[in-house]
Amino acid sequence: MSNWIYPDFGPRPQRPLFLCIISNTDTGKIPGLSAAGTTPELTDYTPGADAELVETNRIITMPELPEAPGGSPTPAIVTKAALNLTGIPSLFVASGLRKKPAIPYAELGGAAGGDIRKEPAVPGARALFENAALLGKKLARLSDCVFIGESIAGGTTTAMAVLWALGYDVNVSSSFQFNPTALKQSVVAEAMSRAGINIGSLKSDPLRAVSQVGDPMMAAALGLMQGLQGSRIVLAGGTQMAAVLALGKALKIEGDISIATTKYIVEDKTANFKEIVESTGRPYYYSDPGLENSKIPGVQIYAKGYVKEGVGMGGAALLAGLYGVTQMQLVQETDRVLMTVELPKK
Amino acid sequence: MSNWIYPDFGPRPQRPLFLCIISNTDTGKIPGLSAAGTTPELTDYTPGADAELVETNRIITMPELPEAPGGSPTPAIVTKAALNLTGIPSLFVASGLRKKPAIPYAELGGAAGGDIRKEPAVPGARALFENAALLGKKLARLSDCVFIGESIAGGTTTAMAVLWALGYDVNVSSSFQFNPTALKQSVVAEAMSRAGINIGSLKSDPLRAVSQVGDPMMAAALGLMQGLQGSRIVLAGGTQMAAVLALGKALKIEGDISIATTKYIVEDKTANFKEIVESTGRPYYYSDPGLENSKIPGVQIYAKGYVKEGVGMGGAALLAGLYGVTQMQLVQETDRVLMTVELPKK
Repeated sequence: MSNWIYPDFGPRPQRPLFLCIISNTDTGKIPGLSAAGTTPELTDYTPGADAELVETNRIITMPELPEAPGGSPTPAIVTKAALNLTGIPSLFVASGLRKKPAIPYAELGGAAGGDIRKEPAVPGARALFENAALLGKKLARLSDCVFIGESIAGGTTTAMAVLWALGYDVNVSSSFQFNPTALKQSVVAEAMSRAGINIGSLKSDPLRAVSQVGDPMMAAALGLMQGLQGSRIVLAGGTQMAAVLALGKALKIEGDISIATTKYIVEDKTANFKEIVESTGRPYYYSDPGLENSKIPGVQIYAKGYVKEGVGMGGAALLAGLYGVTQMQLVQETDRVLMTVELPKK
Repeated sequence: MSNWIYPDFGPRPQRPLFLCIISNTDTGKIPGLSAAGTTPELTDYTPGADAELVETNRIITMPELPEAPGGSPTPAIVTKAALNLTGIPSLFVASGLRKKPAIPYAELGGAAGGDIRKEPAVPGARALFENAALLGKKLARLSDCVFIGESIAGGTTTAMAVLWALGYDVNVSSSFQFNPTALKQSVVAEAMSRAGINIGSLKSDPLRAVSQVGDPMMAAALGLMQGLQGSRIVLAGGTQMAAVLALGKALKIEGDISIATTKYIVEDKTANFKEIVESTGRPYYYSDPGLENSKIPGVQIYAKGYVKEGVGMGGAALLAGLYGVTQMQLVQETDRVLMTVELPKK
């Protein structure tokens, strides 16, 4: 048992699999909302570039390393470090993804999510859910423990929107150090008004909440949870994945389901991670990646509340801990990944 | 041990996985060459429709059930029956696929193969190989025995072309009852002349044989074989997969590799399946699906040499036998699949 993972996760899985859902949503392009990509235009490329980094340590289809406006690199570097150190297989799953990565991935289809202020977010949510359930059912035959992370810029705002639609009066985390909570609240209020829904009015129709004010990542995550019955399922993420837990509860999805994230999310005072998770009755775990010990300033400041989570970083770090990796080994490998990642030639 | 599988395959795998590579090639559109699709135009849709049938028992993106000009339905019905009866998970893998199926699949990227008479067939063969190897490496962590089938119209002609380029002076099977051998030979001769290669001249450069006169399925199959080291690997197909075995030998790919097909291929006197496989030093297995016992004429005539193989049918049937399914159960389930498959509304 590692001393940087809380609380006890139980025995190490036999054949773990790390999935990461990659999606786009136009909600993520609302200026000031997401820190995943230096400009709103680049956010479409961020999920695919995260996938390329994790699978090959190269960025292929995006002109630069995905980073936050503050200069912090994508949390994919921590995920990559954790997977490198453990050899655990990963598989990226595209759901409503506009810009496809140049690595092998599982395709669920679907269109990118709409801007929730202006239009229904995911009209094809049901089809994505069903495709994901089909994939999950197969993977349950192969793996005893499946982690599910995400990379979708703008995902915390859609998370807030579905949580409100389900009746949770809560705030969510941000990849910015200073959470643009007021902007998120105003976007969500506008979306709910556009869709004609109130706080709690979709409590018994969670897929409608996703299709109206959610995003394509959620439909895929729910379908995977549904299909993966029989395997242990660990959602890997912060308030976005907490929203998926809440949706799963509303859909009455059963099974051994929990959530794993970073210390940075659990300690985020601007958001209600613990409150949301506790109300779903599911356990949560978290890892302390110790990034204050990085030699790289943009990585050190994760520990000050920049970025916090994404690309399943908290869950991947937790898996590494289960496999005997020390916190310092993870930090050093994270630095090494960042220093050696290959970028497109300018 | 079932009495319709030859010879002894050894112990039943613990966590088998059935992969099927789906690809397009413009070589398949040369009139008279392929029986996979009633018209050359429809052949682009055949692999995706096969995937839809196996994954959901529905045809979604093609206007009709894929069938040969003689009226025989796609061999995907046998594969589907075998997977239904065993619960073995399947995963379709797109490699140079033009028309994508509406089910979850793994995407390797790449463009459809060119007409080998006119242009290099797979300029991106190396990238497909590398992507497939990356995917294979992950799957080797999850499955102890991976079957690899294919659905690509026109694939036997490109198989003949690469075999000739590697120095095998042989003929290949056909989905037609009467093999259009002379047409294939003339297409292959034209392709070799266009590419400036002779019989055997690419014996030590198998990836160049694929990129010049092969197809995108081959690049993917070779990469999977390379990546799947540690798992038992069973190519599921006829002379196309025998060509992949030969390419794998030339690439010096090691591991526990064999090939499984149908009795109809092994007994095909117009082709050299056994000769090719034996020269690679790899074992072969075959199943007798007993389709003469079908109640449906288009299926019965498989036993007379129509269709013969495809979508990994022979390997899937073999797996079913390993799992205790009888020949008659497979035939009845095949008929049931065909009678219940849902087609698009006209």
